Amino acid sequence: MASRLAWSETILQLLRRMNNFYSAESCRASCYRFEIDGAQVGWILPHVASLLTRYPEVFDPPHGGVVSLCPNLDSYQSRSEAVDAVLKVLRQEAALTCLTGWRDEKYSVMPKFSDSPLMWMERAATSLFGVKRYGVHINGYVVSDGGEVSMWLGRRSHTKQTYPGLLDNVAAGGLAAHVGIKQTLVKECLEEACIPAAIAEKAHPVGTVSYTYSNEEGVFAESQFVFDLELPLEFKPRIGDGEVQEFYLLSIDKVKGLLANDDFKPNSAMVVLDFLIRHSFIEPDTEPCYQEFVTGLHQSL
Amino acid sequence: MASRLAWSETILQLLRRMNNFYSAESCRASCYRFEIDGAQVGWILPHVASLLTRYPEVFDPPHGGVVSLCPNLDSYQSRSEAVDAVLKVLRQEAALTCLTGWRDEKYSVMPKFSDSPLMWMERAATSLFGVKRYGVHINGYVVSDGGEVSMWLGRRSHTKQTYPGLLDNVAAGGLAAHVGIKQTLVKECLEEACIPAAIAEKAHPVGTVSYTYSNEEGVFAESQFVFDLELPLEFKPRIGDGEVQEFYLLSIDKVKGLLANDDFKPNSAMVVLDFLIRHSFIEPDTEPCYQEFVTGLHQSL
Repeated sequence: MASRLAWSETILQLLRRMNNFYSAESCRASCYRFEIDGAQVGWILPHVASLLTRYPEVFDPPHGGVVSLCPNLDSYQSRSEAVDAVLKVLRQEAALTCLTGWRDEKYSVMPKFSDSPLMWMERAATSLFGVKRYGVHINGYVVSDGGEVSMWLGRRSHTKQTYPGLLDNVAAGGLAAHVGIKQTLVKECLEEACIPAAIAEKAHPVGTVSYTYSNEEGVFAESQFVFDLELPLEFKPRIGDGEVQEFYLLSIDKVKGLLANDDFKPNSAMVVLDFLIRHSFIEPDTEPCYQEFVTGLHQSL
Repeated sequence: MASRLAWSETILQLLRRMNNFYSAESCRASCYRFEIDGAQVGWILPHVASLLTRYPEVFDPPHGGVVSLCPNLDSYQSRSEAVDAVLKVLRQEAALTCLTGWRDEKYSVMPKFSDSPLMWMERAATSLFGVKRYGVHINGYVVSDGGEVSMWLGRRSHTKQTYPGLLDNVAAGGLAAHVGIKQTLVKECLEEACIPAAIAEKAHPVGTVSYTYSNEEGVFAESQFVFDLELPLEFKPRIGDGEVQEFYLLSIDKVKGLLANDDFKPNSAMVVLDFLIRHSFIEPDTEPCYQEFVTGLHQSL
């Protein structure tokens, strides 16, 4: 019993860390809202807001808790290009750690996912502006003839820029501007795990996992579109683009145990927790924190 | 397309109404926190806090935004009995509408579900104190030989105290003090829909739906434990205790349409929406508000 309570507490701590932007002690009160044309699209830490005052032709000076793009930048293209030019200068100066991870991937910037994008922004810079990022995560699993479920997990390459060597879902990826969700899923399945499109397309959407955390580098507001993919028993994911070093097929008990140590990429652990709850591998009569788990997986501003 | 957008907007409005306590315009800022022994267990509207000042032997006067139980009430039993005595007086006086719905059902009062209850409180009074209520909702459905899913829905009796005549899940019920979740499920399935225990026990837990709204009567903070129950094709729910007037077996398209008019008990509509998302009847590439739907189903303070 002591160890079950310890497991629950460890999971709660993970969820709290991933939602620390909502906590009473968070930096939220000192952050500037980032607005385009009067609509909030993100959050900016004070030291980043200070840096941006050097570019008054792109960013209006902080005012009333808000940093706005200059209103004369009034189109998708003009906003995107002006901000990108600033980011390229900051990258050269190496003033901000996160820009050393420049990826040349364009992410859409919009108040809500259902809104039209107001601009695009280099992926590595989105956390500087607290711009919400969207991605796709796939739970790959098999069901034995006896009905027993096992999950495929990948271990990230030791050379990955982020979370090297940690456990991850069988495939996952960020949603680039103007690319569909299922389309991203099929692409990532093929590239990361050599899952052919004919199989990947059978994945079905089952919800989202949403969270916002902040650290000294910025504000990470993210929603992951979650898919379940039952893989054929005889199918084995294979290393594709080298982002994964190894795949494991693990029992649910083993997966549960792994969730509670720090061997998992945090948001992938959340996606797995959501899978365990939806598939009744965690039950409310025996897991005292069940309801806190579920709400912790779905926080949004 | 216009009608799909109208559907999405109607669903979003439902989710906003059910979470209005979190909105910027809510009464939250004017509410008192209700505390027992220093731990918050609810929220009290100003006019209710005023009424409670008449009972200084039970409630400390409002102070610093907090209404506390008197600290000399230091046990589960003494707190429960003292508050119940006050509530019975207020019920006699008919000062508060919600107490006319007195049910003689004891609900547990605790800071979080995983905490030990600090007292029990009459169900009808919980919204006066913004005490969080827990319940069980069951999605009853069938899968045809061809794999097509249909849902069983009930229409609430016209004589029900709350939400008479509206559509509802096949069975649902509140969680009384010291009663298990699955136990409540089995009881409600039998009482409301004549689903025998042997079938009801096959229901499996799939998460929770959580929300908080307020109106002039109080603060309604609720979490529903959600179960899916695939019913045998030949099985038909029957009217049990008279809380339901009729059961319908409906196609998913029909259910989707019904969600967007006001014919549904609101929290049951949320449980059905969650079902439609988890079972991929709503997809993120075609539903622009997909992520907002999911987070709107899982808000918690």
